[in-house]
Amino acid sequence: MNTPEAIFTIVRNGEDFTQQISNLTYKQGIELLFDQLKHLHLIDAVSEIAAVGHRVVVGATIFKHPTQITSDNIGKLKALNKYAPLHNPVQVECIETLMDVLPDTTPQIAVFDSQFYLNMPEETALYAIPYDYSKKYHIRKYGEHGISHEYVLHETANFLKKDYHDLKLVTLHLGGGASITASQDGKPFDTSMGFTPLEGLPMGTRSGSVDPAVVPFLMNELHMTADQIIDIFNKKSGLLGVSGISADMRDIVSNSATNPRAKLAYDMFINSAVKYIGGYFTEMGGLDVITFTAGIGEHQASLRTDVINRLAVLGIKLDENRNQNGKGPRVISSDDSSVQVLMIPTNEELAIARSVKKLTNEPKGE
Amino acid sequence: MNTPEAIFTIVRNGEDFTQQISNLTYKQGIELLFDQLKHLHLIDAVSEIAAVGHRVVVGATIFKHPTQITSDNIGKLKALNKYAPLHNPVQVECIETLMDVLPDTTPQIAVFDSQFYLNMPEETALYAIPYDYSKKYHIRKYGEHGISHEYVLHETANFLKKDYHDLKLVTLHLGGGASITASQDGKPFDTSMGFTPLEGLPMGTRSGSVDPAVVPFLMNELHMTADQIIDIFNKKSGLLGVSGISADMRDIVSNSATNPRAKLAYDMFINSAVKYIGGYFTEMGGLDVITFTAGIGEHQASLRTDVINRLAVLGIKLDENRNQNGKGPRVISSDDSSVQVLMIPTNEELAIARSVKKLTNEPKGE
Repeated sequence: MNTPEAIFTIVRNGEDFTQQISNLTYKQGIELLFDQLKHLHLIDAVSEIAAVGHRVVVGATIFKHPTQITSDNIGKLKALNKYAPLHNPVQVECIETLMDVLPDTTPQIAVFDSQFYLNMPEETALYAIPYDYSKKYHIRKYGEHGISHEYVLHETANFLKKDYHDLKLVTLHLGGGASITASQDGKPFDTSMGFTPLEGLPMGTRSGSVDPAVVPFLMNELHMTADQIIDIFNKKSGLLGVSGISADMRDIVSNSATNPRAKLAYDMFINSAVKYIGGYFTEMGGLDVITFTAGIGEHQASLRTDVINRLAVLGIKLDENRNQNGKGPRVISSDDSSVQVLMIPTNEELAIARSVKKLTNEPKGE
Repeated sequence: MNTPEAIFTIVRNGEDFTQQISNLTYKQGIELLFDQLKHLHLIDAVSEIAAVGHRVVVGATIFKHPTQITSDNIGKLKALNKYAPLHNPVQVECIETLMDVLPDTTPQIAVFDSQFYLNMPEETALYAIPYDYSKKYHIRKYGEHGISHEYVLHETANFLKKDYHDLKLVTLHLGGGASITASQDGKPFDTSMGFTPLEGLPMGTRSGSVDPAVVPFLMNELHMTADQIIDIFNKKSGLLGVSGISADMRDIVSNSATNPRAKLAYDMFINSAVKYIGGYFTEMGGLDVITFTAGIGEHQASLRTDVINRLAVLGIKLDENRNQNGKGPRVISSDDSSVQVLMIPTNEELAIARSVKKLTNEPKGE
């Protein structure tokens, strides 16, 4: 698979190495990575790499823990491509390429976004479709940003010097993809993403939740297959589809004063976030903490303001100075807020590296 | 169209007339109705019928008000069948049959469930699909029980001796179909049902919300068309599909102590209702009233208990004596509840009759 306008970036200690390359293959990308690792004197030879961690979106109910992928089980992994057709196939290709390029003795570890959500109660994890289909075809909510939500749950507890089992927490992972997860007792209780990363909030190019009956309706109107309609919901919808101008929240915000459709896209996003938070607050019988993370959640202070101000009825109050002017992980709610609101940067790579280290029992790797 | 095991029922002043008839056609059903109207001395001849009101689920953005259906506009109405394929075609057939049976001078008035929701703000009414599709194909939330939610909004205000414009209200229409609507300023602000009556809460046989990407996934697994999958979501899902025993909430409740799947179906329903109420409470910045209505909402007191007890974090408190032992329209919350909770019976027929009377300007008809 080629990526026509690939951008290769390494960020280390705040320094960027970035290169734009036409038609980069994954294999070439990996070779470029190894060259840079040598150039930066992080390794002298690729044989020094103790293990590789891979983020994989859906492990379904098959891969319940971080798992070393070998020729024995890669077939099982490939069989899951249909569960996240935009994500899993690419990730499998990366694993195969690295198995090919690196010695057989270097473990390739898959860490799954779906694993966190396997502990979710059936009443929120399942759809109300025939129960036999849910079981036979493993149809349930897998979330998507499970690695991030779990990491941020733990980081939030660390930051507050609390046991993460004791927190009723809503984490907002808001980036190009966006999801909101409610956790209690250290486990997820509900989440906005679904069987695939399509459901939930409107996202950069994804529609979020849509009445499934719209699929055959649009198939008929547009003379397309169901897969093509889902592709439109995934790639041409969300902020981009509503605004008509951009999938990037920064563009939506900067145009929303003058462009009614940009404003509509923004309002849909905010209202949806508010509805999920209010729903989870009520479902769990109250909250201790709300944590914002990921691109938009970490960097778009005005969006955090617009969400939190609509939570006033729940007694949740922002401290605008902390929100706008602070740096790094911090509390952004006022001292008299009924729920503490935090901004905690996510770090999925670190979370994956920790899982790999734990599994391979190597002292290196973090 | 035949209905193999039709049951014909007239209820008047608490007296039932019921007859089970094999293979009843709509025309035969209407003749049976006219016979009974004469038998009950409500009319002597069908020519006395001043007008007929029809409930129609979807008028899309075409029929914005109750409308007399004639040979001039019935084509436009038929063109909307695809918007609610389970409901609209049957309703159109009834209208055509009555146009055929009754004199041309008897107006046939269609009152649409979707009309109430045309005032909903775009940020909650639209899906985040490409904006041009929303406009060109009239894709938006139409709700379904609009006639009921609007009626109950007005009845609630009357009961409380308030102006309905001044109420922030959530109405729960819980029956074989189930929907929850949030209203403020006398208009709907958000609703659980969608483009079709499929979306939202799990219902008797309907799944409620499902990730649209499940549609092509199941098409592939089951070798079915998209329409067949949606048919399964409409007719074999919900309480029936999850429990495997019944679409009737009374059966679900009576079996939930011994049957884990009945309990799961019940828990999914309750949790979903709680999530919607909490979401709407937060979206609207608080609530004045929550009103339960329709079959389950009016008659299943224990279900109201299970919903309201999970709203304690919002300061909402049930008075169990009022809930269990009262009769007819009433307040069922305690005096110190932050939000008044009511049970108000719905009466869609009366609401339709009022619309017909208003449109035809006849003093008869109510």
